[in-house]
Amino acid sequence: MKQFNKLLSPNAVAVIGASPDRSKIGNAVLENLVSQGFEGKIYPVNPSYEEILGLKCYAEIESVPGKVDLAVIALPAKLAPTVLEQCVRKEVAFVIIVAGGFSELGDEGRKLELSLKEKIRGSRTRLIGPNTVGVLFPHSKVNTALTPGDRIWFPHEGQIGFISQSGALGLLVMDSITENGTGISGFVNIGNRADIDEEDLMEMFLGHAETRSIVAYLESISDGGRFFSTVKRVNMEKPIVVLKTGRTSEASAAASFHTGALASNDRVLEGILRQVGVVRAYNEVELLDFGKALAYARPLEGKRIAVLTTAGGLGVLTTDLLTTEDARPALSMAKFNDTELAELKKHALPIASLNNPIDLTADGSTQSYASILDLLSNSDNVDGIIAYALPQTPKIDSSVIEPIMSASGKKTTIVGVIGNRLTKDLMLQLEKAGIPAYPTVQRTVAAMKALYLRSTYIRRLLYGS
Amino acid sequence: MKQFNKLLSPNAVAVIGASPDRSKIGNAVLENLVSQGFEGKIYPVNPSYEEILGLKCYAEIESVPGKVDLAVIALPAKLAPTVLEQCVRKEVAFVIIVAGGFSELGDEGRKLELSLKEKIRGSRTRLIGPNTVGVLFPHSKVNTALTPGDRIWFPHEGQIGFISQSGALGLLVMDSITENGTGISGFVNIGNRADIDEEDLMEMFLGHAETRSIVAYLESISDGGRFFSTVKRVNMEKPIVVLKTGRTSEASAAASFHTGALASNDRVLEGILRQVGVVRAYNEVELLDFGKALAYARPLEGKRIAVLTTAGGLGVLTTDLLTTEDARPALSMAKFNDTELAELKKHALPIASLNNPIDLTADGSTQSYASILDLLSNSDNVDGIIAYALPQTPKIDSSVIEPIMSASGKKTTIVGVIGNRLTKDLMLQLEKAGIPAYPTVQRTVAAMKALYLRSTYIRRLLYGS
Repeated sequence: MKQFNKLLSPNAVAVIGASPDRSKIGNAVLENLVSQGFEGKIYPVNPSYEEILGLKCYAEIESVPGKVDLAVIALPAKLAPTVLEQCVRKEVAFVIIVAGGFSELGDEGRKLELSLKEKIRGSRTRLIGPNTVGVLFPHSKVNTALTPGDRIWFPHEGQIGFISQSGALGLLVMDSITENGTGISGFVNIGNRADIDEEDLMEMFLGHAETRSIVAYLESISDGGRFFSTVKRVNMEKPIVVLKTGRTSEASAAASFHTGALASNDRVLEGILRQVGVVRAYNEVELLDFGKALAYARPLEGKRIAVLTTAGGLGVLTTDLLTTEDARPALSMAKFNDTELAELKKHALPIASLNNPIDLTADGSTQSYASILDLLSNSDNVDGIIAYALPQTPKIDSSVIEPIMSASGKKTTIVGVIGNRLTKDLMLQLEKAGIPAYPTVQRTVAAMKALYLRSTYIRRLLYGS
Repeated sequence: MKQFNKLLSPNAVAVIGASPDRSKIGNAVLENLVSQGFEGKIYPVNPSYEEILGLKCYAEIESVPGKVDLAVIALPAKLAPTVLEQCVRKEVAFVIIVAGGFSELGDEGRKLELSLKEKIRGSRTRLIGPNTVGVLFPHSKVNTALTPGDRIWFPHEGQIGFISQSGALGLLVMDSITENGTGISGFVNIGNRADIDEEDLMEMFLGHAETRSIVAYLESISDGGRFFSTVKRVNMEKPIVVLKTGRTSEASAAASFHTGALASNDRVLEGILRQVGVVRAYNEVELLDFGKALAYARPLEGKRIAVLTTAGGLGVLTTDLLTTEDARPALSMAKFNDTELAELKKHALPIASLNNPIDLTADGSTQSYASILDLLSNSDNVDGIIAYALPQTPKIDSSVIEPIMSASGKKTTIVGVIGNRLTKDLMLQLEKAGIPAYPTVQRTVAAMKALYLRSTYIRRLLYGS
């Protein structure tokens, strides 16, 4: 959305409350912005300094020369309304208020938060937060996170737009996904969402060319009707994955203590998500795993899955998980016709097992793997492929990535890479190539099931069935 | 069991088919044995060499001087019966036959496998395999794996006894767990189990002082009655976790192609496992995760769980997963009395949320964390503790391990460590300290639920309720 351009790709960013003191949030925010390599103008604002991190420092936001697209207020809660007012006068497009101490802390905090809403009413200034760890947009090198970069690793540019109601969970999940090199197109912690909420951000990511899927961690939904109409519209064009906590009364209570918002009835939400075809995740790992599958993989056109492995047990376990209904529906094993079986036979060792799952055994070579992947990706009897890439078997090396890339251009392909040392580099390569790859059998299978749920919804949308 | 001492802790090991050629299995087996630092006698056997890897080589097993406790036959299938016969004459206690090409390949293979059974009939020689990747006993430095150590990382000594019907799955899972430093007390790939089967090995691990929990990956069960009586007896003393594939007909078929054994009806198995109180895992990650929890943690005495975090969202998500019934029962959130709440208040910042889950917020310090853990571990209202150790928050450092160790001495404690770079070392330290720790919220919660299932069974056993 054009209205969000100044957030997604600002020309000038101010950090109000910037500090040279490494223990202050105003230092971390400025430091992250600088070290991320942000190429626009950066304005530290603090009346006590002439210069911070080598940048000229301004006494207040209104003395900054020229336009400011994004301002981060890294000051205590009680100062926020006044400084926000200054930002409004300065016509700052987007303001992030980091401090907590608002509606999540009861009546007094709620009043303070209401005053923030009043300050921006009628203005063009939009507010993120309060009580937010900030935003990250790797494509435009914007990073306003409040955590120093030596404590959290931030993901590089990718295709997943990540909305989180919890800041800490968002940061920790981002830290986690750097392990396998997964990138994001953007991250916003909505915090108390006094203004900008999850629906705004879904619209934003819908209009963001770099974003191919949207994932949201939510503890509560402020307006069910608005949520319903937004996810319905957005999810038609870009897949949304939602992790919504509060499935039990105890979990709702926990969410309410955390962000001060009342959690909605989970059955109602479940119904809404089903109706609008949003894939639901049940934990933080699924959230990003599914976002990755939906961003990278081709749509899955049916439920017939071929499984290719050089480790028999993985094929058996995959079949078990794939054909069992769990939190998601069962898929089925693709069946090959006689011509295909004869072709498969040509490219495998006699000891290989060719009844899907295809087990080339530990003696299977990269060449055999490649020929068979090619057959599978051209088969009319196959909708999707789960391929295990296991560099631990002696005749498989990292060049398997080429046939995998070629197969995934033709057929929905998900890769499992199980292990530790030897698999690390292959994982990173697959990620770079935009192939969804996962380090456990369960995660590999669940990602395929998520694609199936998406495809079911798309077919319903297109053909009404 | 005394009868298995020569396998668990052999004095002399022979590798028949040992080779200096790095592409041969007989090379990898010998190399693994040597590089693991096995301190007993190692005898390479191969008529073509005088010496391999600096060790004197023998023309045949019968020319080896003195007793041989364990012999690995790393030769093609068709040679196996003759060489096994020589081993029987030599009175070798345990023989491992690596080669595949037996019952998993149809009628002719089945005949060959029967001939192996005949060779050992009436003798004291026991057979592992055929079609096995070997065994690993880190405490006695025995490693006969067929995979070179530069392709797979092997776990160090630990407390989990691991039985796997699939060799490749076993090796890959072991490779995976080295990432967080998890050790094992032993690994045996039963392969086609012409002689030694999963029940024998459960008995073996029951008598193995270093083993505190037993985990088994099974694709089929050869004798339901024997399985039932063995797991019933063994599981009373040492907890067993079973991952059994073949839950659907398609998965049964896959298992049957893989190891040639007929898979049993899953409902029957489910009933058996419930009756004898065996915890069931549904994927390879759960298998080892649960084995770790059951080996390390104190028994859980009830279902009231306290959750401690410095990242609010993790607390909310944990509550959600903990109080929801999924593949396992729902647990409940511990409720503190007023005295306890007042005590908790003393040790936390005013912004902290003390209604379980306890969220110290990102400003929570190691000291506050320690005092509160101490309170929780002494509370009569708490049965188990889930504590997130997050070194990414600025006031938490790796010294949190001390209060965690102290708490886990008093109360069942499971730790979640979410992230990448900063968390790695903490994970390894927790592992060394024998504290079950997991890198995702879902795995942390599932491990607590596994402990609950175990405790339910033990209570039923003791009190009949």
